[in-house]
Amino acid sequence: MKISHIEHIGIAVKSLDEAIPYYEKVLGLKCYNIEEVADQKVKTAFFKVGEVKIELLESTDPAGPIGKFVEKKGQGIHHLAFAVDNVNEALTEVEANGVATIDKTARKGAEGLNIGFLHPKSTLGVLTEFCCE
Amino acid sequence: MKISHIEHIGIAVKSLDEAIPYYEKVLGLKCYNIEEVADQKVKTAFFKVGEVKIELLESTDPAGPIGKFVEKKGQGIHHLAFAVDNVNEALTEVEANGVATIDKTARKGAEGLNIGFLHPKSTLGVLTEFCCE
Repeated sequence: MKISHIEHIGIAVKSLDEAIPYYEKVLGLKCYNIEEVADQKVKTAFFKVGEVKIELLESTDPAGPIGKFVEKKGQGIHHLAFAVDNVNEALTEVEANGVATIDKTARKGAEGLNIGFLHPKSTLGVLTEFCCE
Repeated sequence: MKISHIEHIGIAVKSLDEAIPYYEKVLGLKCYNIEEVADQKVKTAFFKVGEVKIELLESTDPAGPIGKFVEKKGQGIHHLAFAVDNVNEALTEVEANGVATIDKTARKGAEGLNIGFLHPKSTLGVLTEFCCE
């Protein structure tokens, strides 16, 4: 497995309508895409900062993963996504090293990427995602 | 204020001795620097992923900020640092936009950078750092 760069940082927010103006007006970043990912029960807003994306995540269902995260921990950084050559190979490789994965094989995420999550119990508390085009 | 890129992502860990092998052997990244920042009561380990650094933070004092964070929330992503042209100007600018800052002026951080923190209550739960050389 070769990690080339950080693809994105996922940040859980209560409301995109509140969060987007902060990122645009205070930090001077530009939202270039808003997308609903029904499968993950979220609406997402994307910003580019150098080579890394910031992905704001608003829950569309209190029972979804972001809804539960915000309820339990409040708003804040939710996950860290690394760009890899091949998500399935990367998942297999970390599993062989004893890491628990949430996804056994790649699935489709926002922006049409192939994604797979590692379990934070195996990654020192960091919910970690692998992704590739 | 102009944010050029994400300078680093700070991740709180219980033990660098446990965390460094995970980042090196499982994720294939390379630790290029270990440094103690006495002022912040931490020992840090740095990795480069594309243009972004990952800064692992181990507390050297349970009463320090990372010690308290790990005690309260467990290991995980602690803060997000943006590279700006001038930390003092950036702090002044966000304050003028109603953002609470932890630092009123820049101070010295790891790797000799000038740094300043924004308060997470004003940044939608993300402990945010500005830094520049």
